[in-house]
Amino acid sequence: MDPAWQELRDRLGEVSDLGRARALLAWDERTQMPAGGATARADQLATLARIRHQRLSSGELGRLLEQLAEPAGELDPDSDDASLVRIATREWSKAQRVPAELRAELTRTTSLAERAWMEARERSDFGHFLPHLERVVELRRRYVDCFAPYEHPYDPLLDDYEPGMTTADLRPVLEALRQGLGPLVEGIAASRVELDDSCLHGSFPLAAQAELSRRLVELLPLEPGAWRLDTTTHPFATAIAPSDIRLTTRYDETYVGSAIWAVIHEAGHGIYENGMPHELRRTPAGHPASLGFHESQSRLWENWVGRSRPFMGPLLDLLREAFAGRFGEIDADALYRAANVVRPSLIRVEADEVTYNLHIAMRFELELEIFEGALSPAELPEAWNERMREYLGLEVPDDAHGVLQDVHWAAGSFGYFPTYSLGNVIAAQLWEAAAQAVGDLEPLVERGELQPLRDFLDERLYRHAGKFESKEMVRRVVEAGLDVAPLLRHLQGKYGDLYELA
Amino acid sequence: MDPAWQELRDRLGEVSDLGRARALLAWDERTQMPAGGATARADQLATLARIRHQRLSSGELGRLLEQLAEPAGELDPDSDDASLVRIATREWSKAQRVPAELRAELTRTTSLAERAWMEARERSDFGHFLPHLERVVELRRRYVDCFAPYEHPYDPLLDDYEPGMTTADLRPVLEALRQGLGPLVEGIAASRVELDDSCLHGSFPLAAQAELSRRLVELLPLEPGAWRLDTTTHPFATAIAPSDIRLTTRYDETYVGSAIWAVIHEAGHGIYENGMPHELRRTPAGHPASLGFHESQSRLWENWVGRSRPFMGPLLDLLREAFAGRFGEIDADALYRAANVVRPSLIRVEADEVTYNLHIAMRFELELEIFEGALSPAELPEAWNERMREYLGLEVPDDAHGVLQDVHWAAGSFGYFPTYSLGNVIAAQLWEAAAQAVGDLEPLVERGELQPLRDFLDERLYRHAGKFESKEMVRRVVEAGLDVAPLLRHLQGKYGDLYELA
Repeated sequence: MDPAWQELRDRLGEVSDLGRARALLAWDERTQMPAGGATARADQLATLARIRHQRLSSGELGRLLEQLAEPAGELDPDSDDASLVRIATREWSKAQRVPAELRAELTRTTSLAERAWMEARERSDFGHFLPHLERVVELRRRYVDCFAPYEHPYDPLLDDYEPGMTTADLRPVLEALRQGLGPLVEGIAASRVELDDSCLHGSFPLAAQAELSRRLVELLPLEPGAWRLDTTTHPFATAIAPSDIRLTTRYDETYVGSAIWAVIHEAGHGIYENGMPHELRRTPAGHPASLGFHESQSRLWENWVGRSRPFMGPLLDLLREAFAGRFGEIDADALYRAANVVRPSLIRVEADEVTYNLHIAMRFELELEIFEGALSPAELPEAWNERMREYLGLEVPDDAHGVLQDVHWAAGSFGYFPTYSLGNVIAAQLWEAAAQAVGDLEPLVERGELQPLRDFLDERLYRHAGKFESKEMVRRVVEAGLDVAPLLRHLQGKYGDLYELA
Repeated sequence: MDPAWQELRDRLGEVSDLGRARALLAWDERTQMPAGGATARADQLATLARIRHQRLSSGELGRLLEQLAEPAGELDPDSDDASLVRIATREWSKAQRVPAELRAELTRTTSLAERAWMEARERSDFGHFLPHLERVVELRRRYVDCFAPYEHPYDPLLDDYEPGMTTADLRPVLEALRQGLGPLVEGIAASRVELDDSCLHGSFPLAAQAELSRRLVELLPLEPGAWRLDTTTHPFATAIAPSDIRLTTRYDETYVGSAIWAVIHEAGHGIYENGMPHELRRTPAGHPASLGFHESQSRLWENWVGRSRPFMGPLLDLLREAFAGRFGEIDADALYRAANVVRPSLIRVEADEVTYNLHIAMRFELELEIFEGALSPAELPEAWNERMREYLGLEVPDDAHGVLQDVHWAAGSFGYFPTYSLGNVIAAQLWEAAAQAVGDLEPLVERGELQPLRDFLDERLYRHAGKFESKEMVRRVVEAGLDVAPLLRHLQGKYGDLYELA
């Protein structure tokens, strides 16, 4: 191997290792760390992030990438090496553009803002959070300016989560989704059908829920010996390596549904990470393609599999096993109805499959207005409450149940929210593609045979890892552009039946 | 603050963070990691170690230390800042001397050697391990040469674990210890007293042992909320920060003594780390002074407290609580005898308080002979078996129970073994100093009041952290030189009584 290629692999391997090490420290902080470790952990995380950034944006790496640009140009653009140079150059050049001081200032400011946000949410006092939010937005504007020229000031923000995707690409999709969902939500609200989910409420011992959760993950096509499951406050999944997946969940002693679908959701993220090809390990191309694609996998397993009628058989078996003497009087149809109650709610993370996208739509629109200069942070609560009324028909009683509910803005993560809905859109497109490629999925899911679906995803999506930007991935993976029709078909069909809509 | 001092703190803080992060990854590997993570973890650990070493040996740090040498020279040598420059200069200069290639070669070779050692031990086949051991010794000789001139070729090896301590310092101490122990071991062997430890053998459910272990740590003066206890194969303790201590232990379902004293031992290491002063955090002076001092703390809590007659009251209470209906017929005297059986054994890690030091003496002597050129690796098994006969009166049945039992040599850790006995020597000296300073410790230990002992150690030992080299620490902490008399007094007194020796 040409020593320059080896050097590239070595340098990128180092950057990758630093990122993975940081992921482990963050996982540990949220699942294992004694409380006394908090201060030191913040230093340790900051150091790893800083050194990783220094290495990623180093002049040596830049020169190496420049030197390899020509030989890489002669390779098949789909090859690992060509992709590696392309993706590494993209990351290097992005890292270059942001001055170290701005990066440091963002870290400091969002750390303070997150603390203020927590206090503000506790007291439902937006005013306490506002000056911090203003500062975060101001810094994010400066961040955006590092990437001038741009078509839309939101583009550089979005690009961090959805490489290459622009506001112009995304806005019509999410707008069409919101408009398509309106009549469905209204129809469900007007329906006389009330789905009964009382079987999921009651008293569910935590140990039994934990065992149920482990059994659920074992049922999913995730490599044995390559994952673990721990308890945390806000569930997440993280990959320390493709064969070292850390899933986390939480348990609600009075509602077993919380654990069931959180675990399947996080396992969905884990399955994607587990599918990253070995040849690309320790490289920036060896990661999932984008947050939208990541969310497409968590949602596909959570909703298209985990809340589907055929999955209720295997799920019911596990429930009966975990809670002896319970769920005897429940059949799969009843469990299916319980798993799919639609009920407009104030809180995004508690939202159902249908209304969830409306929570995202309003956040996306508010973010756009802020960065277009049409809305100031001070005006956010009013704008929030208005849109909540318009989209979900709900009155927001206080800011804790409104504009203060999510940490994302305090963390400076503008551009993150739309990837949740994008994930739903892609999941629906992939599901239709899977049905075409694999054939009828229902009998497989009914028997708990999920490997064929994983095989399809490995072949269609996972093997590309992060070799292409988000739009190009859409083209390759669903063999068309982004399209909300499959998602709307899925939701209208499923909930039209459940709620007996005309 | 002078910006140069701040820069020094920042640079050293980074080195410290990288070391702590590496410690967390190593802890995770041995306690939490799914099996699938092994390959990636090796890369991650190597990257963190390499970057830490680059930063520690960097020219920038060297120039900064040079620049601060003069202002530091004007400070009180006991001050934090003067100590910081002194210790950092020492570490920088040691890091400088070893070429990167030799370091990389050592890492590669010991990694292969450890694997070969594991296979060799399994098959009790020293020949399989020998070529690897020869290569490790050869590299360690080259390592030693990086530190020429030296008084003795073993000095640079010892210095990595016991800063500033030389072979000339240590050899007479361990020689005196071995000679002093000879008659005691013979006396015990000839004694007609048989101590009965059957109460510690039987069937002890793992969950109850785990709960007992937690209660034991809670009884010890370790900051609440600053530790956790996990299960592993080879127990160890590691500090991710002074208030983030990771203790590990193992459980033997048929012998509860294994867990009891392993937990107290590891907690002793943890208490020392927990006592590191906040002002020195994220600096190379903010660590325990040496491995010998570290071991002095694990041994002090394990043996001087944990196996003492007064501790048997609190321990018996915990045993009765953990194993309902058991230990009713056992009194504290019986438990004391069970906890202190002396029985020469082939395996170091199973050895009692008395014979342990003979295991160390023979390893230390063999290491010296190897680096003095008097013994070749090929001659080790025979030399081992001879010494085992001479010191402990035991015939070694095969190399798995002899020369192949420890990983240290495969790992290249020559110079490590003597710190175990050094720890015992220092522990005994500290214990006598504690009795002088605190007064009668027995009634305190009997009531489970261990904080006064911790207060003494905080004041006498922990507050110095790693500000001084090992010999200077001995001078300050026990107010005399190294002296085996207190250890021999302790062992002769205690076991003379137990075994009714004249």
